[in-house]
Amino acid sequence: MSQLPATSLQDIIGHAKEYGFVFPSSEIYDGLQAVYDYGQNGVELKNNLKAAWWKAMTQLNDNIVGIDASIFMHPLTWKASGHVDGFNDPMIDNKDSKKRYRADQLLEGKAEQYEAEGQPEKAKALLAEMGRLLSAEDLNGVRELIITENIKCAVSGTTNWTEVRQFNLMFSTQVGSVAEDSSLIYLRPETAQGIFVNFLNVQKSGRMKVPFGIAQIGKAFRNEIVARQFIFRMREFEQMEMQFFIRPGTEMAWYETWKETRLKFHKAIGLPAEKLKFHDHEKLAHYANAAVDIEYEFPFGFREMEGIHSRTDFDLKNHQELSKKKQQYFDSELDENGKPFGNYIPYVVETSVGADRLFLATFCNAYTVETVGEGENEKQRTFLKLHPALAPFKAAVLPLVKKDGLAEKAQAIANSLKSSFRTTYDDGAAIGKRYTRQDLIGTPFCIVIDYQTMEDDTVTIRHRDTMEQERVAISELKEKIGYEVAVERILEAI
Amino acid sequence: MSQLPATSLQDIIGHAKEYGFVFPSSEIYDGLQAVYDYGQNGVELKNNLKAAWWKAMTQLNDNIVGIDASIFMHPLTWKASGHVDGFNDPMIDNKDSKKRYRADQLLEGKAEQYEAEGQPEKAKALLAEMGRLLSAEDLNGVRELIITENIKCAVSGTTNWTEVRQFNLMFSTQVGSVAEDSSLIYLRPETAQGIFVNFLNVQKSGRMKVPFGIAQIGKAFRNEIVARQFIFRMREFEQMEMQFFIRPGTEMAWYETWKETRLKFHKAIGLPAEKLKFHDHEKLAHYANAAVDIEYEFPFGFREMEGIHSRTDFDLKNHQELSKKKQQYFDSELDENGKPFGNYIPYVVETSVGADRLFLATFCNAYTVETVGEGENEKQRTFLKLHPALAPFKAAVLPLVKKDGLAEKAQAIANSLKSSFRTTYDDGAAIGKRYTRQDLIGTPFCIVIDYQTMEDDTVTIRHRDTMEQERVAISELKEKIGYEVAVERILEAI
Repeated sequence: MSQLPATSLQDIIGHAKEYGFVFPSSEIYDGLQAVYDYGQNGVELKNNLKAAWWKAMTQLNDNIVGIDASIFMHPLTWKASGHVDGFNDPMIDNKDSKKRYRADQLLEGKAEQYEAEGQPEKAKALLAEMGRLLSAEDLNGVRELIITENIKCAVSGTTNWTEVRQFNLMFSTQVGSVAEDSSLIYLRPETAQGIFVNFLNVQKSGRMKVPFGIAQIGKAFRNEIVARQFIFRMREFEQMEMQFFIRPGTEMAWYETWKETRLKFHKAIGLPAEKLKFHDHEKLAHYANAAVDIEYEFPFGFREMEGIHSRTDFDLKNHQELSKKKQQYFDSELDENGKPFGNYIPYVVETSVGADRLFLATFCNAYTVETVGEGENEKQRTFLKLHPALAPFKAAVLPLVKKDGLAEKAQAIANSLKSSFRTTYDDGAAIGKRYTRQDLIGTPFCIVIDYQTMEDDTVTIRHRDTMEQERVAISELKEKIGYEVAVERILEAI
Repeated sequence: MSQLPATSLQDIIGHAKEYGFVFPSSEIYDGLQAVYDYGQNGVELKNNLKAAWWKAMTQLNDNIVGIDASIFMHPLTWKASGHVDGFNDPMIDNKDSKKRYRADQLLEGKAEQYEAEGQPEKAKALLAEMGRLLSAEDLNGVRELIITENIKCAVSGTTNWTEVRQFNLMFSTQVGSVAEDSSLIYLRPETAQGIFVNFLNVQKSGRMKVPFGIAQIGKAFRNEIVARQFIFRMREFEQMEMQFFIRPGTEMAWYETWKETRLKFHKAIGLPAEKLKFHDHEKLAHYANAAVDIEYEFPFGFREMEGIHSRTDFDLKNHQELSKKKQQYFDSELDENGKPFGNYIPYVVETSVGADRLFLATFCNAYTVETVGEGENEKQRTFLKLHPALAPFKAAVLPLVKKDGLAEKAQAIANSLKSSFRTTYDDGAAIGKRYTRQDLIGTPFCIVIDYQTMEDDTVTIRHRDTMEQERVAISELKEKIGYEVAVERILEAI
């Protein structure tokens, strides 16, 4: 058996659609750009990933609790967070083709070209200059740089560019039914602020003591100018964020702790160490004093999957100023002089992972094509090597043949397992074809009912990854498979 | 012990906020009307309810699978479903107070008043006349009826009313960054259409055979004119819907089956039979040929918690017409004449439950105040009688005292349980007070570590509902409590 090389994003997109993992949204109406739906197997994988993350946060840690804040929030929230004023992308249009680009991405593309041509200094200088201009909000300078670098529109081939303008990425809508009482509200562009505005509610009602965390899973929305790479960058996406509230001055220690803890999580769900790496931010966001990405090697290269940010007291302080409500915590622990630390606005270390990106990483990593057999029996086998706790179905019950009572026996076994874990039944084709069906959606265990079963109440379990078979008693199935597929196996590995 | 009578909605709202179940959204900015956030205990209860529903659908039934479609959908979806043209509420304003009302609710209020005055015939006649006018879209007639009935504005006390106008309840937003490529899209007002547009994708990629179902949990949004009754009617809410695709002509049998199955679910999660009832719709929606609500007796009366609707082929047929994509299924089973049933657009029976309403019903039902003790020891005890599988924490580990190694022993026990089920540790007050803390959030089991524990490795388990205590070995805790709190217990009761 040998593993075949490199999977393309097209392979992934094709497999995801054909086997019910991800469909283009509203496909019968020719789709909606940068929006996708999870199919019958995708939703199970995604839910299992979300459950693993949720339990890793709120079940393994006595000092982390969850919330579920609404997508609609008071508009002042986004004033305090800086999104109303600063959540922009610079965009530029080509006057001939009418095509729109992100100005920064045009310049990054040029820098990549310099790299490819063996001119890394020129690439570096260009990116530095772009960073300087964007920081200074010198949009005219950005435009001039694009023209100086002779960057052409891919469609028209011309350098006939418009001005560079800032475009706010938040979606807005009107709530309320009449002019006098309606107001503009935003669809949240991140879930973090739902945690910050609930900080005191949770701290007080839960009697939480610093350090403590609040975790949340939920949808966020960004009106991306250029959305691409399948479910990697969508206009509607899901975040899994945890804000950890700490005593000021302890942030670097906690930042390091969370970097390591989060990396362990990704390994525990089955992502290999060599496909994961830390990438420190060169340029820090306005709210951060340290920031790192955990990158995964997608088919299109290493890209951000999770961000870990030391956010200081930026958010709580701004909410305090705008709401006029004190966002303080009284710390009764004693400092080195024997006095309580007293009142302060906690600092925050955030871990923020894209649920869709984690899904895509898990899916890409699981997608395996190998050659099996030898000589003229050699063929390719495709299967999803998912952690058993993440697989859409945990077991498939397959009668070897339909007749002689095997089908009824198999159905009875399937029924006896289904309240414990998700089990499917299939009697619709030759046994090899049915194995393949389960391989393609990642079912870790196939339970086969044969003639021996009718005599001694044993079955074979066929293992997805090794294709090895073992004989076990029917009475042992629930416990044996139940053990393997439990999310506890992931939690214990963190 | 005697149970005290009637809980008010105010008791529920107060308890929900004080103990971290439900907070007003964006409360530091004085809230956002008709939007709420789930706190650290609320999110666990809600997630547990969602998981129980999801497993009852997609794990117990081999022929039901889930999906997770996006909130953003192609705008033609809402043309096909009838929402663009028909998803309206009639509204009317009082010119003096500027206050807005739903015209139908003003008339319903008047009918209730007639009922209260012992004039049920007048109430009935009024509602019938209103139904007739609304069906005929005679908005002027509705206004005249309000004036004839002398209905006054509660604020100004006058009958100085504007015209009645239709108000579409869908929220809209602009997607895309420039005029030429941006378009108006809606936030979905129901999750059902995400299932219908994916019908063929799921059927084909999952090789599903009619009858089969597709289940979905997700947010929906309605710009309610008058939102009220806590989380019962919110502008942002969550639905749990299952569309069951069937052969035309079999719909009434499936409708009856799903009525019974869904009622069983509600009983299995702990809602008592006497607080549940069916309520047949007098007036059917445009898409239905049979419809019933499962109502729960909330503190404000029996109200809809779930709807079960026979939707015919209304949705798929309209999507087929508008998208020009055939929404047919080929049924290879043979009819009484030995011919395949062949191609048809399936009929649909839908079950649709509001996750927030199910949460509210469960929370109201669990909220219990009883008197305990006698004579001068008599006092009130408040606790949440939640099914153990639904409780936010499954167990609390409490050392009787902190000293003599009891705290360390208790922490070790808590740590040994936490990867199996959600466990909390508390050593912060007298033992009675700690019991109360757990009662108030519904923790079913308190594990107490005392001096005997240090000798023989046994602990007491104190049961929330009976306050009875039993002595068990530490080595038995994981299995014993793990069994009680597993969602399997709910699934097996359906």
